[in-house]
Amino acid sequence: MAARTGREVRLAARPEGEPKQSDFSLAEVEVPEPVDGEVLVRNLVMSVDPYMRGRMNDGESYVPPFQLGEPLDGGAVGEVVSSMVDGLAPGDLVLHGLGWRDYAAGPAGSFRKVDRTQASPSAYLGALGMPGLTAYAGLFAVAGMKEGETVFVSGAAGAVGSLVGQLAKLRGGRVIGSAGSPQKVAWLVDELGFDAAFDYHDGPVVEQLRAAAPDGIDVYFDNVGGEHLEAAISCMRVHGRAALCGMISQYNATAPQPGPRNLGLLVGKRLTLRGFLVRDHSDLMPEFLREVVPALADGRIKVRETFVDGLENAPGALIGQLRGENTGKMVVRVGEPA
Amino acid sequence: MAARTGREVRLAARPEGEPKQSDFSLAEVEVPEPVDGEVLVRNLVMSVDPYMRGRMNDGESYVPPFQLGEPLDGGAVGEVVSSMVDGLAPGDLVLHGLGWRDYAAGPAGSFRKVDRTQASPSAYLGALGMPGLTAYAGLFAVAGMKEGETVFVSGAAGAVGSLVGQLAKLRGGRVIGSAGSPQKVAWLVDELGFDAAFDYHDGPVVEQLRAAAPDGIDVYFDNVGGEHLEAAISCMRVHGRAALCGMISQYNATAPQPGPRNLGLLVGKRLTLRGFLVRDHSDLMPEFLREVVPALADGRIKVRETFVDGLENAPGALIGQLRGENTGKMVVRVGEPA
Repeated sequence: MAARTGREVRLAARPEGEPKQSDFSLAEVEVPEPVDGEVLVRNLVMSVDPYMRGRMNDGESYVPPFQLGEPLDGGAVGEVVSSMVDGLAPGDLVLHGLGWRDYAAGPAGSFRKVDRTQASPSAYLGALGMPGLTAYAGLFAVAGMKEGETVFVSGAAGAVGSLVGQLAKLRGGRVIGSAGSPQKVAWLVDELGFDAAFDYHDGPVVEQLRAAAPDGIDVYFDNVGGEHLEAAISCMRVHGRAALCGMISQYNATAPQPGPRNLGLLVGKRLTLRGFLVRDHSDLMPEFLREVVPALADGRIKVRETFVDGLENAPGALIGQLRGENTGKMVVRVGEPA
Repeated sequence: MAARTGREVRLAARPEGEPKQSDFSLAEVEVPEPVDGEVLVRNLVMSVDPYMRGRMNDGESYVPPFQLGEPLDGGAVGEVVSSMVDGLAPGDLVLHGLGWRDYAAGPAGSFRKVDRTQASPSAYLGALGMPGLTAYAGLFAVAGMKEGETVFVSGAAGAVGSLVGQLAKLRGGRVIGSAGSPQKVAWLVDELGFDAAFDYHDGPVVEQLRAAAPDGIDVYFDNVGGEHLEAAISCMRVHGRAALCGMISQYNATAPQPGPRNLGLLVGKRLTLRGFLVRDHSDLMPEFLREVVPALADGRIKVRETFVDGLENAPGALIGQLRGENTGKMVVRVGEPA
């Protein structure tokens, strides 16, 4: 039998500013058969996430940088093709970290079996996966959002932001979101039940936020940084808290961006800014799933996904996400279920 | 008997940038005799504190602004001259909030009797007073400093900063301080036992801090803001915390100053910046005194005070403090003990 081959996306060059297609390359590689203790998985869907932009740079970060000439990686869901381990059988659906390729192979411990009947494969990359837990941990564990508080979330139409707003509504909060298009704003208010939302292109964030939250905000969930963070600090009430999840406005910047000019307000208003990574909060996964799985099933939480077809289009999906072209979770379809 | 008169310092103009002598005026006023429930106090010492600069501006802040043509106020210690209330007798030493004047009069509840035998009157304005509790609350309650951690404090030779460093040493920390002169740096290292200290005029703060703490810092106690805060963020270890107490580098600024360019590090390193005001932490006063009174008495905590003589020189004392002319607590002697 001829050796099986598959494609993988490699880092061809480190981007200056916004990534270009030529910063990626597509390669055909031979797929090894699994040895004892290993599984071979054919990917169905993979995730592109804003944090991947940081990994395209060289240098110290909280995750190791992607290496030139090597495949990228990230969240993916696939079907087991062959298994040399108990507990995983061909056809099983698994969540793992070897996206950006057709086939993923490795030790069984790197693959977590997920329930096909509970949700679609892509849900494990979004609402039931890392972005969902990020929203949950940031809102409740990091920012300590309490019932009745007013929450502002930026990047509100993204995978994380759209969950943040809906979780805050479920806990009795008042929710304001910012997003990058009138269509996204309409989705937030009309379908997700946000109390208010605005398009940050429509004017200074601080003015739009003040109009939407004239009595101020208690919690800010930051996906964007920059002007959004400064506006949130200005509008925070005494003892307000910000969970800093990401700063997508800065990821393509080629020089350090000045920070908020109003940090002095942190003292007088006793504000807290706290950065976090979801990986510190995996202990919350069980309670997160207990809350979110039923809410997804009965429609109290809604998700939208933006699909891009074909592994060869994954670089374009990441570039587009950094431009805000997705609504909800950005997912690349790598293969069809068997 | 002729009515008693005394002097008070009033706000004559709101400063633009650094305050000038002409922003203050000295007025002679008649001193009322206390009525039932009131006391009359002759001030001995009064405090000038950096936060007073903010109160010279108009506009919303965490304390009401000083009013044009009205006397300033702030911490002071004086002797009761006459009392129309049980529990306070002439000669008693009291701590209160009506500084910037020779005589303070008002309801008994505004005056707290302090122990003459425990410490000097000025200690109640410094190590045993608001600055001391500020250091204690910020370091332990806000930043959660733990044994063995590395602590960086800016404004380290001030009333608050010098306590922060010594408290951290008592709890088994490694302590680095920044200050504004070689004399202050020598005092921190040679007398207070700081592990390292530097003069921020000697070069970029981030370079000096990195040299003093090559393995990074866990806690930053911020009295300064600006470049110091940016440097601390750069040097923080994972899960580092900053207690933001004040930003003296910004107080005389006439336009908003850009914030740190490296706030993105808050996410990856999971850092927390938390502003605080000592008035939220008065519940800590008993435990604070239990720790600090004996440490002051036996010399494990040392204080230095910079005295300015004469109420008429109080404006100059505040201006000088904002320039960093004090070492330790800046105290104005208003009157002599009887």
